[in-house]
Amino acid sequence: MDYTVDWRDGRIVMVDQTLLPQTYRVLEYDNYREVADAIREMKVRGAPAIGVTAAFALALAARSLPDDPSAREEAFEEACRILAATRPTAVNLFWAIEEMRAVYRVHRAQDARTLAETLLHRAKEIQREDVEANRRMGAFGASLIPEEATVLTHCNAGALATAGYGTALGVIRAAVEAGKRIQVLADETRPRLQGAMLTAYELQRDGIPVTLIADGAAAGLMRQGKIQCAVVGADRIAANGDVANKIGTYSVALACRYHRIPFYVAAPLSTIDLSLPSGEEIPIEERDANEVTHLRGEPVAPDGVDALNPAFDVTPAELVTAIITEKGIASAPYEESLKALRDTPPDQVQE
Amino acid sequence: MDYTVDWRDGRIVMVDQTLLPQTYRVLEYDNYREVADAIREMKVRGAPAIGVTAAFALALAARSLPDDPSAREEAFEEACRILAATRPTAVNLFWAIEEMRAVYRVHRAQDARTLAETLLHRAKEIQREDVEANRRMGAFGASLIPEEATVLTHCNAGALATAGYGTALGVIRAAVEAGKRIQVLADETRPRLQGAMLTAYELQRDGIPVTLIADGAAAGLMRQGKIQCAVVGADRIAANGDVANKIGTYSVALACRYHRIPFYVAAPLSTIDLSLPSGEEIPIEERDANEVTHLRGEPVAPDGVDALNPAFDVTPAELVTAIITEKGIASAPYEESLKALRDTPPDQVQE
Repeated sequence: MDYTVDWRDGRIVMVDQTLLPQTYRVLEYDNYREVADAIREMKVRGAPAIGVTAAFALALAARSLPDDPSAREEAFEEACRILAATRPTAVNLFWAIEEMRAVYRVHRAQDARTLAETLLHRAKEIQREDVEANRRMGAFGASLIPEEATVLTHCNAGALATAGYGTALGVIRAAVEAGKRIQVLADETRPRLQGAMLTAYELQRDGIPVTLIADGAAAGLMRQGKIQCAVVGADRIAANGDVANKIGTYSVALACRYHRIPFYVAAPLSTIDLSLPSGEEIPIEERDANEVTHLRGEPVAPDGVDALNPAFDVTPAELVTAIITEKGIASAPYEESLKALRDTPPDQVQE
Repeated sequence: MDYTVDWRDGRIVMVDQTLLPQTYRVLEYDNYREVADAIREMKVRGAPAIGVTAAFALALAARSLPDDPSAREEAFEEACRILAATRPTAVNLFWAIEEMRAVYRVHRAQDARTLAETLLHRAKEIQREDVEANRRMGAFGASLIPEEATVLTHCNAGALATAGYGTALGVIRAAVEAGKRIQVLADETRPRLQGAMLTAYELQRDGIPVTLIADGAAAGLMRQGKIQCAVVGADRIAANGDVANKIGTYSVALACRYHRIPFYVAAPLSTIDLSLPSGEEIPIEERDANEVTHLRGEPVAPDGVDALNPAFDVTPAELVTAIITEKGIASAPYEESLKALRDTPPDQVQE
């Protein structure tokens, strides 16, 4: 597939990311409630990919709305609520829902069929804009990567986490395309192992050298001088530059700080939530303890043991060397730099 | 069993730690080469437990030595070499082999059967001394733990990693026995999950509240104020206080430093290697990449992907708040404090 999530013949299609890399199964949906379940179950995951999926899900919902204007709006709003309730941390989900809701409001006078087409048009735009944003992020970010480097990444912020190309892996891809000699160290990223299952898979397919490590191994490798920088994605960035990302990211940032290694975050502006002053206010999803106590359905811990499973952590801005966006690179103080990037008109972006 | 590794009717008995907590299988050995395999395959693991096991394995080897003195010494030395080649990092292995070798040399004039009994006697002493050392460490270490605390630990430094009671978990047990209100957070400890499989199992059996987390979750929980201190074991401590311990320990220490949380190491003096000036000289075992790319025999990463699997990392002394031994608590500068503890006669240890 060209895109991680796509629209085909009136259906949403995506690869089931819980089965990769062993099984490549394409899922098709014609019911937005099932798409909401797929987001909740992480068949599709990654902040930008969740946003694109939610936009398509609303386009799908729009195809079976009632004719009566008030019932129609109520049904659309219900779809927005159901999708918004799937996962709390990635702000791209809420951003995409708001984008679609705005289109709905502007075009609510259209007949049901035309309105559905209008919404689908916007969802496709969001999809394409995401890939374009990733490519621009890649170009900006590649300039930060040394000519020869081993780059650490955590979780999967790749093509599979976005509409395509990737945020953190987009930066790595762009550096490789620019002729830099890049090796990637991929944290396996417990509990769900997105590094092992998805990042290693993506990079191997692209022929980019990748070596998998347990999450706990990164700091020791930094101490040995084997890592030149870290690049990760983000699920939500607060106005002060605090970064919520997959659990374990904070440990990467702490190890980078101690070893004086740059720690970069690559994320589209749709991931930046200027409404939250700091990371303290970012809601952190708690997922099922079974993700820690079991592996692929098999218990690894004694029966009945408690487990805590926060899906994300917050890395304070002071540990973030730079935030790479599609409009340029922000550095501290982030209160000013993030706002400035957000307010930069597209035609004034420096390439 | 009273001890993690024991001697029964001329055989070594131990629980297969690769099968816990789901399966409790007792292994019996009457051939020291098979015991060497068991150490290599981590059926028994944990620095002090490996030392005790090697001592018993040499007692076992001594029962089938040839009568000719020179052939006998050669066969004993071969057993020492085979056991020493099992795992490189835990110095207790080499310490126990040296202890047994010293007994052999002093008593080499004994007839074969008497010498075997003499060696077995020393192996049993090493076993009992280890438990006693752990209990003394527990008493010293418990004084460092607040009256009410959540204590983080990494890997398994418990009864199963020693002859019994445990080093880090011995400190926790002693704090609980002293009436302190202790909760334990156990890092699951990828890649081999000793935290999930062994630490959670031990503490649950003892009725000490334990909650399992992915390794990457510890730093975020520290940020939320949910951890009051960390206590870990060690596989080898250099003269300057640098600590080699299970991979991921260094990340725990870095997170403790950033959050100003005490980071304690509990280890018997047999773990301290004053012959090495710093952690730089500690040999770090690299284990099979399969431990990272597979879980319980099932692949979690794409076929053919590279993985690095260092089994240990080195935490620099400057991150270590204190080292708890059976003769007292050492703090910086460790060059002096560790040597002083080592040189303290047993009757001058302050209780």
